[in-house]
Amino acid sequence: MSEDQTIEAPEAEEADTAYSLDRKAVAQILYAVDLDDRDQLVELMDPLHPADIADLLEQINAFDRMRLIKLYDKEFDGEILSELDESIREEVIGILAPEVLADAVREMESDDVVDLLEDLDEPQQEAILEALEDSDRVAVEQSLTYPEYSAGRLMQREVVMAPEHWNVGEAIDYLRNSDNLPDQFYHITLVDPKLRPVGNVTLGKLMGSRREVLLKSIMEDTFHVIPVDQYEGDVAYAFNQYHLISAPVVDENERLVGVITIDDAMIVLDEEHEEDVLRLAGVDSESSLSDRVVDTTKRRFPWLFVNLITAILASLVIAQFEAAIAQVVALAVLMPIVASMGGNAGTQSLTVAVRALATKDLTGSNVWRVIRREVLVGLINGAAFAVIMGIVGVVWFGMPLLGFVIAAAMVINLVVAGLAGTAIPVVLEKLKIDPALASGAFVTTVTDVVGFFAFLGLAVVVLL
Amino acid sequence: MSEDQTIEAPEAEEADTAYSLDRKAVAQILYAVDLDDRDQLVELMDPLHPADIADLLEQINAFDRMRLIKLYDKEFDGEILSELDESIREEVIGILAPEVLADAVREMESDDVVDLLEDLDEPQQEAILEALEDSDRVAVEQSLTYPEYSAGRLMQREVVMAPEHWNVGEAIDYLRNSDNLPDQFYHITLVDPKLRPVGNVTLGKLMGSRREVLLKSIMEDTFHVIPVDQYEGDVAYAFNQYHLISAPVVDENERLVGVITIDDAMIVLDEEHEEDVLRLAGVDSESSLSDRVVDTTKRRFPWLFVNLITAILASLVIAQFEAAIAQVVALAVLMPIVASMGGNAGTQSLTVAVRALATKDLTGSNVWRVIRREVLVGLINGAAFAVIMGIVGVVWFGMPLLGFVIAAAMVINLVVAGLAGTAIPVVLEKLKIDPALASGAFVTTVTDVVGFFAFLGLAVVVLL
Repeated sequence: MSEDQTIEAPEAEEADTAYSLDRKAVAQILYAVDLDDRDQLVELMDPLHPADIADLLEQINAFDRMRLIKLYDKEFDGEILSELDESIREEVIGILAPEVLADAVREMESDDVVDLLEDLDEPQQEAILEALEDSDRVAVEQSLTYPEYSAGRLMQREVVMAPEHWNVGEAIDYLRNSDNLPDQFYHITLVDPKLRPVGNVTLGKLMGSRREVLLKSIMEDTFHVIPVDQYEGDVAYAFNQYHLISAPVVDENERLVGVITIDDAMIVLDEEHEEDVLRLAGVDSESSLSDRVVDTTKRRFPWLFVNLITAILASLVIAQFEAAIAQVVALAVLMPIVASMGGNAGTQSLTVAVRALATKDLTGSNVWRVIRREVLVGLINGAAFAVIMGIVGVVWFGMPLLGFVIAAAMVINLVVAGLAGTAIPVVLEKLKIDPALASGAFVTTVTDVVGFFAFLGLAVVVLL
Repeated sequence: MSEDQTIEAPEAEEADTAYSLDRKAVAQILYAVDLDDRDQLVELMDPLHPADIADLLEQINAFDRMRLIKLYDKEFDGEILSELDESIREEVIGILAPEVLADAVREMESDDVVDLLEDLDEPQQEAILEALEDSDRVAVEQSLTYPEYSAGRLMQREVVMAPEHWNVGEAIDYLRNSDNLPDQFYHITLVDPKLRPVGNVTLGKLMGSRREVLLKSIMEDTFHVIPVDQYEGDVAYAFNQYHLISAPVVDENERLVGVITIDDAMIVLDEEHEEDVLRLAGVDSESSLSDRVVDTTKRRFPWLFVNLITAILASLVIAQFEAAIAQVVALAVLMPIVASMGGNAGTQSLTVAVRALATKDLTGSNVWRVIRREVLVGLINGAAFAVIMGIVGVVWFGMPLLGFVIAAAMVINLVVAGLAGTAIPVVLEKLKIDPALASGAFVTTVTDVVGFFAFLGLAVVVLL
């Protein structure tokens, strides 16, 4: 087979085919802003998707952003607002002329308006609600009664449904006579007399079936109903796990109240991933490149402070062995190696465990097997690095016993790293603490403390 | 507004509403396997989606897996194979009776068969190709002529298209008279006489428009064409960025050759994220929980070896200051704190930078601004921790000058961490080296070396 023709990951230049906003386009647009040339600006911005315009606004500095928005003026589209990072969004709403903002918001779908409002201050929220037409405002205000990050906030309220006893012909006639179909829909949801959803029929299947066929007989195999108060991360998980395209949302009486489509679920999935990556590195998951320096500094500080505490704990361990270090300074030279190797092995294990917890691959059914496996991996790699470091210790310092000490400490710390790296995330999850956020500090503390203690303690016993 | 009613992230028990495979279900299924009770097993497995069955097979041990598959036998569905982790998939294919495998594969869509074949050994590939009907085999073999990880491998070959001059009535009549529509499709793609795609019409729009309306007048605003040799990660990026539902795929002559739908793009997006998270932690991105111990050990070793080299580099720096440490042992106690803080701050910066590069938020247009920002953040947080550690140094060891040395080293290392954490991923991306994979080792080396050198070097100058 063609295993050899593998495509490489995207490179800077090639990626441009997938993305219309390159450095040159940005420079041209900023040049038009410098010249105050509105026609040229509108012409350059015209081929850009609102998502690209939002990226552009995020990449340029605040002064250019203000001039660009003022010059672009009435062309400003509501969808750009939806696509902007929160930190920039408030700033942009502040710059837009009230009538431009009102126009932009009035063009948006009601679920996008909800998404926009969630992150704004009270006065900005009210300005936008006032700009909406009465019926839209009521829809938006109703959505806002559902808790934040719930399926209720994510769903569209317009659902295309049909009674479960209809046939294809009835459904098609109904659709063709409806004035008010949503812009995007992929299924007709069948409901029982109490408005409880019983199945989905795809539009493609509907178009390809004879008029007398019963809708019930062409329902999709996979049908998944979402409770209106479900956490949006769980909604995204279900879409990803079961390959859903759209899913009905039901209230506590199992009555149909809305529909969630895969494009919204994909956005949530992307956000959840982003949060996990950042949290694993001790970065506040709501931070973005466009935050102000002072905000970023404040967001990074707490994690660094936690790290300082763990580093001081490790130092306290070292302090117990000051006498030994004064006698054999080589101990001070080699001790960071043991701690660093343990920290890295622990991070490997914990990242695998945190991901597996998130994707529900690590469960009560296999947790002991996974822990045993990670400990074994630590033992084998520990033995390998014990041999390497034993040799390094002997060659560098000419002390066979020192080689033995670092080798033994290496095995101990890598085994502990495998154990702590798996067990700590699992325990945190049980305690309902986000493992992505908190595991790193605990695991590093364990591997630092154990690393220094094993190495220096063994040195005292063996060498002195 | 209702900001206060925030929903918490999913907890173990609540998550069960989103996921049908809980610990109890697994235990019941294994009990049925123990009893060799086929009817009970089939009844318990019946409500499970193939994706859940795949998860189940991944969670249990190899012996239970074999017994379960042999007992489940003819019920085994091709979709389960698609959902399995690669490492388990080969094992399962080996267990399945040849006629069960043939049946399972024959039920699958051709793009799923391609996905399945990609990761198999030659003999297993041939067994599966032989099981296919002739027409399916040709389709699969054609797909395999496209490079791995390209849009060509991802696309379905069945496209629903219409000439650009047709009206709604003509399109509907055509669809209703087609025998062979794909199972899932959401758009009709309009093509010019040379078969080049010019736009998409959603099925919803088609159903809601009068028969005499021209298709061209109801095309979607956002239309994105994908080259057949595009990297699948870029395809997923475009779906996510432009909120696409389906997109036509074209060959080098811009002729329509297939279509990619959002559900396939979502799977790729998920895989790409997974790879990024794992690579950032130095874990091979193809590893999974179900790998054997020896494979996992081998996959983890290279990164730990790289880390060993960087740790030894740092030790060589310390070795230059053996005399100073012998005089003031407190230096050995405090030096890991400076290195550890630098490493953590560097990891924060590099994770933000790597993510921003992946989402194309960090570009040539704003790279200098971002670097300046990270350095400033490092400077401010460095100053804050300098004060804290200065006090700790004085209180702990009663040496004001030692407090000054650790404070100054802290500022230097956090500034360097901000600089290296941003600049190194950017430079690696320019050099076409995956920044997620390689940044960590470089950044940690820099912060370790600079941390030890600044602290111990200043100590020699100031204290001795």
